[in-house]
Amino acid sequence: MKITINQEKLAKALNIVSRVASTRTELPVLNNVLFQAEGSSLILSATNLEIAVVEKIAAKVTKPGSITIPAKLLTEFITNLPAGLVTIEEKNNHLFISSGSYKSTINGTNGEDFPELPILDEKSAVIFKVNIDDFKQAVAQTIVTSSNDMTRPALTGVYFNTFNKALYLASTDGYRLSEKKFINKVSSEIFAIVPTQSLQEVLRSINDEHEELEILFNENQVKFILGEIEMTSKLIDGSFPDYRQLIPKETDITLQLDKDELIRDTKLAGLFTYSSGGSIMLETKKAAGVLSVQSVASELGENNSDINVKVNKDGKVTLNSRFLIDGLNCLTDKQISFGFSGKLNPCVLKNQNSDDYVHIIMPLKS
Amino acid sequence: MKITINQEKLAKALNIVSRVASTRTELPVLNNVLFQAEGSSLILSATNLEIAVVEKIAAKVTKPGSITIPAKLLTEFITNLPAGLVTIEEKNNHLFISSGSYKSTINGTNGEDFPELPILDEKSAVIFKVNIDDFKQAVAQTIVTSSNDMTRPALTGVYFNTFNKALYLASTDGYRLSEKKFINKVSSEIFAIVPTQSLQEVLRSINDEHEELEILFNENQVKFILGEIEMTSKLIDGSFPDYRQLIPKETDITLQLDKDELIRDTKLAGLFTYSSGGSIMLETKKAAGVLSVQSVASELGENNSDINVKVNKDGKVTLNSRFLIDGLNCLTDKQISFGFSGKLNPCVLKNQNSDDYVHIIMPLKS
Repeated sequence: MKITINQEKLAKALNIVSRVASTRTELPVLNNVLFQAEGSSLILSATNLEIAVVEKIAAKVTKPGSITIPAKLLTEFITNLPAGLVTIEEKNNHLFISSGSYKSTINGTNGEDFPELPILDEKSAVIFKVNIDDFKQAVAQTIVTSSNDMTRPALTGVYFNTFNKALYLASTDGYRLSEKKFINKVSSEIFAIVPTQSLQEVLRSINDEHEELEILFNENQVKFILGEIEMTSKLIDGSFPDYRQLIPKETDITLQLDKDELIRDTKLAGLFTYSSGGSIMLETKKAAGVLSVQSVASELGENNSDINVKVNKDGKVTLNSRFLIDGLNCLTDKQISFGFSGKLNPCVLKNQNSDDYVHIIMPLKS
Repeated sequence: MKITINQEKLAKALNIVSRVASTRTELPVLNNVLFQAEGSSLILSATNLEIAVVEKIAAKVTKPGSITIPAKLLTEFITNLPAGLVTIEEKNNHLFISSGSYKSTINGTNGEDFPELPILDEKSAVIFKVNIDDFKQAVAQTIVTSSNDMTRPALTGVYFNTFNKALYLASTDGYRLSEKKFINKVSSEIFAIVPTQSLQEVLRSINDEHEELEILFNENQVKFILGEIEMTSKLIDGSFPDYRQLIPKETDITLQLDKDELIRDTKLAGLFTYSSGGSIMLETKKAAGVLSVQSVASELGENNSDINVKVNKDGKVTLNSRFLIDGLNCLTDKQISFGFSGKLNPCVLKNQNSDDYVHIIMPLKS
């Protein structure tokens, strides 16, 4: 293999691809990135066996071939080279790199040692083309309620699912749940749980040059295509809970609130409750026309703040302050709606002016 | 105690003072900040027994008095309050805080429980008034070579010392040494080792509003006065090595180099040598007119880069790449001078156009 390539392009591609390279040692070749030179391209690949990323970049290929190279060392090395053309040559599993007065040899392994990368058959796949900004927002709004409890794998991802011709993203960790109506009208059906970690990898790989994202599903895999970057991940094998029945149709008390004010009051009350797991109490007082946000008494002291609201009923609910702040931060409107029905039923957070996102939090016992 | 005070001013002061509050539990009151209201001021104090910080801010004092309050909780609480006036009242060792619709109680302890703060007698002190930017630079240039080996306490600080009527800052960890001529002409003598940690605390407390810093020394203590902030630290008890004799008067080979180029070459070579403790070799080749920067062979591969230089002699020296990068980053000129005398003698880094800073690195065995 022998190629000449632009330093900046190579550094950029390596910074995306090498992040996926594993740091585990059971299979040392997974710490490496695979270089394949063919036609007029260099193809870079890495995988941790859960997700594989492949990026193709333009290169002048004098001699085709392949090699695998330690991802971290190679990435830092190329990133620190000065801008300009870099010549890269493989001989006996060593990579010779030269650029101006710089000459290096990095020890690699035979390209054929690299595990086979997953291939998703595009012909039989369900395909969605989506706007990058919408995707980033929808994932950010739902990933937050996914679980990291590996004993319940179905909850460690985001559930892409179609319902009444629309595509939804949803996740739940058993204490809270979020659902985003992502595309109003789609022509195919899909029911697939995408690992949280793979979605985070996709989000991290997006840059300003990307305009559109293609998402391809087959039965076991999902592929994200971002320009010249392709990321293929396993889907989570398991059935996602029938979550729609958990979303209350309505709540006894529904308040219209300024989001930032409620975030601030929740933070202030939460400061006092580190030792009691972050629980705070929200109480509506019809006579006074206020929502009062209180820390539950702790040895540190106590806190109360009142927010003026229109409310037609007295009520109380105890919540985890961190969960409430997470949920409020997922809302995009300045004015939001907060609904609850007594101490035992789920609380519902929504934007005031749109109905495409719902965030549910289970109360704490009090 | 009862006062009314501006939220932003109080938050800013708490963020400086509370950082010094200890998080150790042997003496729980040290986790607290002391509030003392008197005249038309609130005085905030905290100490970890090594360093004490006191800041005075304007307040409307309705009733003088004092209390100590957990520093972290109070700081986060006040920081999260909305801008505006805050009323603070002490009753039976509870602090009642109110601001608009916010009402809180934080449990504190009697102000008299707080340990006595160190007092430095200003009359007998040696005083220097210094420019803030010069101070920041001089400390940054010397602190980097101080040690964190607590078995040699004299090396865990920066040595403020006068010599031929000038004030110098110096530090060494036994492997490298730096010296900055800080003030060209002073009228008093001083020989004092200031703990690294105290200097870092002073640097962190400096903001754009500060123009001048006063430094007061007595036999055992140093006080830094930054506007309304006063920080008093113990000095390190011990004798600093007679370091001037360790600085070579001249070196066999002295090269004029571009600083950024040498940093880059050192980084690139250093990448290959994590396993061998970061050692790299610098070699001058008179015939070729180059300085070659090489990684010492490792299982990962090897690296060589050549820098064109004027050089009158062949020579070699092995250095720790991290130490060399640290040293180069302390230099302020773009063109720097790098001198060495064979494999065993100290290397000398200086700015090309000024002589007020010198940075010495001991070679590694090779």
